Amino acid sequence: MNTLGYCFRVSSFGESHGTAVGCVIDGCPAGLSLNLEAIQQAVDRRKTQQNTFSTARKEEDRVQILSGVFDEKTTGSPIALLIHNQGAQSSDYEALKDIYRPNHADFTYQQKYGHRDYRGGGRSSIRITAPLVAAGDIARQLIQHKHITQVLAYVSQIGEISLTEPIDLDSLSHQQIDSNEVRCPRQETALRMRQHIEEVQAEGDTLGGIINTSIKHVPAGWGQPIFGKLQAELAKAMLCINTVKGFEYGDGFLSASRKGSEHNDSFAYQDHAISTKTNHSGGIQGGISNGMDIHFRVALKPISSIRKPQESLNTQNQTVPLTIGGRHDACAVPRAIPIVEAYTWLVLADAFLQHKNASISYETPSF
Amino acid sequence: MNTLGYCFRVSSFGESHGTAVGCVIDGCPAGLSLNLEAIQQAVDRRKTQQNTFSTARKEEDRVQILSGVFDEKTTGSPIALLIHNQGAQSSDYEALKDIYRPNHADFTYQQKYGHRDYRGGGRSSIRITAPLVAAGDIARQLIQHKHITQVLAYVSQIGEISLTEPIDLDSLSHQQIDSNEVRCPRQETALRMRQHIEEVQAEGDTLGGIINTSIKHVPAGWGQPIFGKLQAELAKAMLCINTVKGFEYGDGFLSASRKGSEHNDSFAYQDHAISTKTNHSGGIQGGISNGMDIHFRVALKPISSIRKPQESLNTQNQTVPLTIGGRHDACAVPRAIPIVEAYTWLVLADAFLQHKNASISYETPSF
Amino acid sequence: MNTLGYCFRVSSFGESHGTAVGCVIDGCPAGLSLNLEAIQQAVDRRKTQQNTFSTARKEEDRVQILSGVFDEKTTGSPIALLIHNQGAQSSDYEALKDIYRPNHADFTYQQKYGHRDYRGGGRSSIRITAPLVAAGDIARQLIQHKHITQVLAYVSQIGEISLTEPIDLDSLSHQQIDSNEVRCPRQETALRMRQHIEEVQAEGDTLGGIINTSIKHVPAGWGQPIFGKLQAELAKAMLCINTVKGFEYGDGFLSASRKGSEHNDSFAYQDHAISTKTNHSGGIQGGISNGMDIHFRVALKPISSIRKPQESLNTQNQTVPLTIGGRHDACAVPRAIPIVEAYTWLVLADAFLQHKNASISYETPSF
Amino acid sequence: MNTLGYCFRVSSFGESHGTAVGCVIDGCPAGLSLNLEAIQQAVDRRKTQQNTFSTARKEEDRVQILSGVFDEKTTGSPIALLIHNQGAQSSDYEALKDIYRPNHADFTYQQKYGHRDYRGGGRSSIRITAPLVAAGDIARQLIQHKHITQVLAYVSQIGEISLTEPIDLDSLSHQQIDSNEVRCPRQETALRMRQHIEEVQAEGDTLGGIINTSIKHVPAGWGQPIFGKLQAELAKAMLCINTVKGFEYGDGFLSASRKGSEHNDSFAYQDHAISTKTNHSGGIQGGISNGMDIHFRVALKPISSIRKPQESLNTQNQTVPLTIGGRHDACAVPRAIPIVEAYTWLVLADAFLQHKNASISYETPSF
Repeated sequence: MNTLGYCFRVSSFGESHGTAVGCVIDGCPAGLSLNLEAIQQAVDRRKTQQNTFSTARKEEDRVQILSGVFDEKTTGSPIALLIHNQGAQSSDYEALKDIYRPNHADFTYQQKYGHRDYRGGGRSSIRITAPLVAAGDIARQLIQHKHITQVLAYVSQIGEISLTEPIDLDSLSHQQIDSNEVRCPRQETALRMRQHIEEVQAEGDTLGGIINTSIKHVPAGWGQPIFGKLQAELAKAMLCINTVKGFEYGDGFLSASRKGSEHNDSFAYQDHAISTKTNHSGGIQGGISNGMDIHFRVALKPISSIRKPQESLNTQNQTVPLTIGGRHDACAVPRAIPIVEAYTWLVLADAFLQHKNASISYETPSF
Repeated sequence: MNTLGYCFRVSSFGESHGTAVGCVIDGCPAGLSLNLEAIQQAVDRRKTQQNTFSTARKEEDRVQILSGVFDEKTTGSPIALLIHNQGAQSSDYEALKDIYRPNHADFTYQQKYGHRDYRGGGRSSIRITAPLVAAGDIARQLIQHKHITQVLAYVSQIGEISLTEPIDLDSLSHQQIDSNEVRCPRQETALRMRQHIEEVQAEGDTLGGIINTSIKHVPAGWGQPIFGKLQAELAKAMLCINTVKGFEYGDGFLSASRKGSEHNDSFAYQDHAISTKTNHSGGIQGGISNGMDIHFRVALKPISSIRKPQESLNTQNQTVPLTIGGRHDACAVPRAIPIVEAYTWLVLADAFLQHKNASISYETPSF
Repeated sequence: MNTLGYCFRVSSFGESHGTAVGCVIDGCPAGLSLNLEAIQQAVDRRKTQQNTFSTARKEEDRVQILSGVFDEKTTGSPIALLIHNQGAQSSDYEALKDIYRPNHADFTYQQKYGHRDYRGGGRSSIRITAPLVAAGDIARQLIQHKHITQVLAYVSQIGEISLTEPIDLDSLSHQQIDSNEVRCPRQETALRMRQHIEEVQAEGDTLGGIINTSIKHVPAGWGQPIFGKLQAELAKAMLCINTVKGFEYGDGFLSASRKGSEHNDSFAYQDHAISTKTNHSGGIQGGISNGMDIHFRVALKPISSIRKPQESLNTQNQTVPLTIGGRHDACAVPRAIPIVEAYTWLVLADAFLQHKNASISYETPSF
Repeated sequence: MNTLGYCFRVSSFGESHGTAVGCVIDGCPAGLSLNLEAIQQAVDRRKTQQNTFSTARKEEDRVQILSGVFDEKTTGSPIALLIHNQGAQSSDYEALKDIYRPNHADFTYQQKYGHRDYRGGGRSSIRITAPLVAAGDIARQLIQHKHITQVLAYVSQIGEISLTEPIDLDSLSHQQIDSNEVRCPRQETALRMRQHIEEVQAEGDTLGGIINTSIKHVPAGWGQPIFGKLQAELAKAMLCINTVKGFEYGDGFLSASRKGSEHNDSFAYQDHAISTKTNHSGGIQGGISNGMDIHFRVALKPISSIRKPQESLNTQNQTVPLTIGGRHDACAVPRAIPIVEAYTWLVLADAFLQHKNASISYETPSF
């Protein structure tokens, strides 16, 4: 299953050390003027080597649009996006050909398929998200053509260091998020996070973290009931990101210990608009957006490729010592920010297009 | 979007106070001998009136199999399951026709569709899960025809009361889980949970909680990489359950504060089988089961229908007092147990059937 | 695969002699006022016993709407349609349990599934189209809410008797088509067709025929290029009707012997509208409607259940004499008219809804 | 809609004069050793310049496999196939930018999308089938890994010249079909067809024709009832080929004038195998293969780009003279042979993979 979405469908292909990674968008309406530079910038934001604790693999990552765009406008035909692989050092991986690295997909791919591309994780590499980030930017451009919707993801926790006070979401911007290497919008916390990463990196170890995301100015009515609930599509998309172990929206796990009277959001009518006084719901009720901001959080585990010596099994079922060389991140959480945002846009674009057939009175009232 | 699954597809239909609720299973292989009584028992386990704190609505919930089964065996044709609605008192809801109940889907359905069935929540009612629980039991029978896989869900938290020590999963059984009204397998905790519910119920308020689920004896190799990851399908299915606000698997949110060396699960080879010494991964790596038990947790908010007086808006945008009568649960978490299990089985059955086309050597090695 | 359509999806279930036959429509927009009587009339038009040469099985065929409609308006939720089976005499079929009837699906279902419902053809019976005809009428009402589109199917050939001159399509109406039992709009031909059927029926034999269909006033722009071409979706839908052996549109098989200069349709601009001077294309170019009428033809084989004695094999591979009793049509072509129309509407409704996302300028220019 | 198939899914992208044309196969099982040379040969067979009456556009058409294959074996990951466009002379088309060519998709694409790639027909060009022919060969290799199934398509009619006697299908081979330029296996007829083409070409005109296809040694049990009937999937695939106007299988349109007793195929048991004495059904009953050869025919219209002067409309609704230059086929029917075969293989591969989940007794009996 390599396709996400129903009306705005993105199909992924490619392996880490193959010829190229890419994807095809099917279902993007015609006539949309694409800002091609913005697409490249989104991909650049995901790139490695933006800080000292990320993999040293040099990825040029030039996005090539093979089809579906003519005179810088979408034609309604599939948009194929391609990024050629370069700087891949497959020889790094030859040694790992017969070893199942702990917590990698080596063992499970072997079990499932009997035959696998072991170079750099092959299909299971985070590298396959590069063209998907480009697709996410096209999704963003599609929605922003009509709406002022914004998606803002930032790091709220790295290892043991977390934000202790809430961020002011009204003033939050991408510029602020990207103002430091760890993409935590509070500078003093960001500094401590960075020190934490460096210490752990020095031990040959890795760290995970938590990403908070806000979707602002999403119209009411998006999402499908029952098996297409907006939170369910967001949860699915997030859990498709390699290291994500958990998802919560609104008050999330905290709501388990709240009473109904504490958790309910009262409606208010002000300035000719309906809103809710609180937002424990996280902007979604019954699987459908209610016009308030949508908030969700994802937990990412530390990445599995550690420099510290480990033991593992080889394909002959023998215990062998394992030291992973190659070029790996000590903390991938900041680099996941553009991926989280891109997947969010993909889910939104699909909800946006699906919504158009909700009612025969094409225009449904908005908040 | 009212369909879940790709190879084992379940399509839901029906509203709380309409003629009937039902679903259609498409893709169930032929030749499976169905235990029809077990299907009814699964549905009965979801029913109301099993305790003092659930809604007093009397639901008979007899599952009728309309098609796809002949001589108690599946024929390969769609299996339509129907449960007629009875005991529905629509008049309870007439008063709510013009009011948006807080945290219900009233407002969002109205925004999305312009026209809605307001009786008992209509399509957004938890009642529509009744036939889906029946479908889940057919999924279970399909898998257990070949495998000894088991799904065990239990309540680990209600409001502020939670299990403080881990449950012994080796000995855990449905009998133990169902031995008390709150479906928490430790009796003393269950007792305190029940007291907590009763206190809150007396206040006219409601409680949420957390459900832990273990999938035992799932073969290695199930799940699809990239956009069909097993954890992503589970997350999606869980977030489709009405009150679920969060999902985590393996070490979940805790893994955000762990180091890679702490989180990695070492492989071991013993008695001609590969396993991992720890299971921080939660039984899934790269989106594919590794043969270890799969663990996940879901957080449920307190249900929104509280007896306590609230304020809300009516469809004329006026603030009005709101007192919800009708028959409602004070805590829906125990009743969600069969739903969580059923949706888990639906995801597994789909992964099971999808897996058969993974490799040309139909049989892939198992753990 | 029991589902047709992508945006307007219809899923079929049920067997000829089971409890009920039915279907579920998913994707019908909310707010459509349904004429419920018209739905029943469409189903009645398909019913048996409307003439002397159809099966004597008495089918009441009351359509029940289980969900998705409230206050006679669609709600956007799945619309489940149910028709209970009655008048089924399964005992007629007990004798055929172990015999593969020639040209029926007995042998192939047995090969595919190993287990089959042999009563009345089970799932392969034409009876399962009854609720689909109801679904087709909902599709019609959806389109006619916005457009003056019409679908007119009529019999142009029965056995050796065929229309020798073209029908005046401008004046053609359902009333004219239904004015005789064989549904051929030219009375003298209809009379000869009826005599032909009666002669063949007396021999214990059966006849096939050809149905012509015109779709009038379909807007330009419907249909999807490449693998969703309008003619391809129509062809697929038609070939899903039990006895259909061929499909052609526009000039069809005749175009194989025409030159390009003869076949090309010149454009003309008149009264502020673009049209083509001829319509060899049949109203579709590049898979997309061009605003001209769409014409197609389907060929139906004679039905296989003949009263004449035959030989066949039983499940022990022995040659046995076979005389099919039961109640069967001598010519099913006239009864196929409502099915052809219904399937056409289903394809059009899907194209209609898919088209809304073709361009960001929601409104595309029409013919 | 740019995807064909359900289990073996092929998604097309690209335009005639864009960067590249390509497709992605999702769902091909792992472990299949691919003969890469055979894939290229299949594409070469579709190429232009193989005869004097085809377009002079020089297409190198080197298929590049970007992903999903490692060590010449499929990995279970998506197989992306790419063919770069070269030799495209877009300037030929600049003049046609504002003119709707008769029977092309110019007008309908403009109506649907408002914005179109007019160069060489853009997305509606037959050129997009080149990578799909490669995909078809992978489908063939997948099936032939397990079965001796064969697909043989040949030209039976060009314009007014048609085969008058049936071809001996037992001895028919690709070598025989390709032994002349028109791909008609009877040499004297082929010669007359070629003369006919040359005469018409001299007039600046074009010709259509008919292609017959036989699928040999297809196992019984393939195909899905109701909306996935094997004939319906074949019909859909065929009608997706640019110039195809009709499809029939078995006795096709002829069966409309046959009696049931003439059309029924009696079963016979011989040498421990069940077969039918005749094959009017064309190898499919109830939508499922019965183990006999499958026969179908498709009608292709003459291509629309004629050198003869025509009149047309421009985008300002003015009547303008039109003379189409560029490089075009006088008869595209022989070049359609590899496309018909490829699409047939795609349908079969999908039916093959879908069939594996038909029954819990994975192995169903075969003919």
